[in-house]
Amino acid sequence: MKDMRNIKLTIEYDGKRYSGWQRLGDDDKTIQGKIEAIISQMTGEKIEIIGSGRTDSGTHARGQVANFKTTSQMSRNEMLTFLNRYLPRDIVIKKVEEMPERFHARYNATGKKYSYYVWNNPIPTVFERNHSFYFPQELDLEKMNEACQKLMGSHDFIGFSALKKSKKSTVRTIHELSIEQEGGMLHFTFVGNGFLYKMVRILMGTLLEIGTGKLPVSAIDDIFENKVRQQAGETVPAHGLFLDEVYYQ
Amino acid sequence: MKDMRNIKLTIEYDGKRYSGWQRLGDDDKTIQGKIEAIISQMTGEKIEIIGSGRTDSGTHARGQVANFKTTSQMSRNEMLTFLNRYLPRDIVIKKVEEMPERFHARYNATGKKYSYYVWNNPIPTVFERNHSFYFPQELDLEKMNEACQKLMGSHDFIGFSALKKSKKSTVRTIHELSIEQEGGMLHFTFVGNGFLYKMVRILMGTLLEIGTGKLPVSAIDDIFENKVRQQAGETVPAHGLFLDEVYYQ
Repeated sequence: MKDMRNIKLTIEYDGKRYSGWQRLGDDDKTIQGKIEAIISQMTGEKIEIIGSGRTDSGTHARGQVANFKTTSQMSRNEMLTFLNRYLPRDIVIKKVEEMPERFHARYNATGKKYSYYVWNNPIPTVFERNHSFYFPQELDLEKMNEACQKLMGSHDFIGFSALKKSKKSTVRTIHELSIEQEGGMLHFTFVGNGFLYKMVRILMGTLLEIGTGKLPVSAIDDIFENKVRQQAGETVPAHGLFLDEVYYQ
Repeated sequence: MKDMRNIKLTIEYDGKRYSGWQRLGDDDKTIQGKIEAIISQMTGEKIEIIGSGRTDSGTHARGQVANFKTTSQMSRNEMLTFLNRYLPRDIVIKKVEEMPERFHARYNATGKKYSYYVWNNPIPTVFERNHSFYFPQELDLEKMNEACQKLMGSHDFIGFSALKKSKKSTVRTIHELSIEQEGGMLHFTFVGNGFLYKMVRILMGTLLEIGTGKLPVSAIDDIFENKVRQQAGETVPAHGLFLDEVYYQ
């Protein structure tokens, strides 16, 4: 019997053409489905890959992580070349690594980093139009930074998620939440030990409504206390969101 | 009789979906055709716009310039808002300016700046795939810089163009030709008093062949002397090329 290998992939993709990460049946409109089909061709085995987590339809990734088991004898470099040759141009494998048998891309993830981009300028952007949210209204960055301070740390984020109810804990820790201005672009960075369903996009919507004055900074405290989704801001579009990095151990 | 105004536009566009700048008949698969249609709607006049020059099918622009004559009384700001509301998202008007009657976007242009992007990395790029040429072979940047030095200044560039013959002068002056490395990306900047048909893309193809060793640096001198297109490198793809700026007076 051949040895079973455990392969870790680091993946970059443009989410525009896909209905998200997670395969639904046998379609290939998902990133997972697309990659599995090519790996199955490559190995001659029916391969299932385990992602670090889902990304929504339209969300991008610069550092999604997945793993799969195979008995293939191909070298890591041969795999990298094969995959990037046959995957569509909007999905790229950046790294192929050999992992111990127990490595699991979802269970072992200890945190994630996301970016969200807001094009905050009266004139729209051509080249970043598919990778940022066009939001021309004036924003009070000082108030938004105050809100970021309140959001950092450990809290029950259920009010900032699209979950109805959850049997599991909805407490998460945000280690970093920062705003950088790069010309007309606002770059929001979120680092935390985990994020609930649509949490980054609802946090972003809330921050923008605080920036325009529609919500006061104190809304953050209220939502932590009342745990009511309706008090938070709208869910911003997926196409401004990037999964940048998944952390392990 | 109403006063005739002369309006200058600064335009950004993603060339991917278009068959170039110049309108061919009444289609709207061209940037010019698309913009003229919206300006005609806006003013109620049949408007023809004059571009600083053509860009090829697939070429992008961050600072194309055009002008048109109108008797419309709209303010510059109203025009800016109207145009960006009704133009497709891959064409954006960045500036609307009022010019003297004699201003002509093509005749008055005294120079242009172009950028060309080469993704020079074994791993392809997802997010820059439509705005750079993927060229993973190793390149000798020192030799390429030597070639850039030879190309600068005033020369007859006919051998580096797709022109068959020309009754007009094909002497042009390149003021700046530089290569900057930005991570896996090579950014080539061309500034000159004018560029012949496909000249930037043929210069780029020649520089890349010098970089891989397929052509010697001295090929530049030979092509200036022999004026033979076949001795130069291939024409690189249009989707790595950006018209950055048009200079006046």
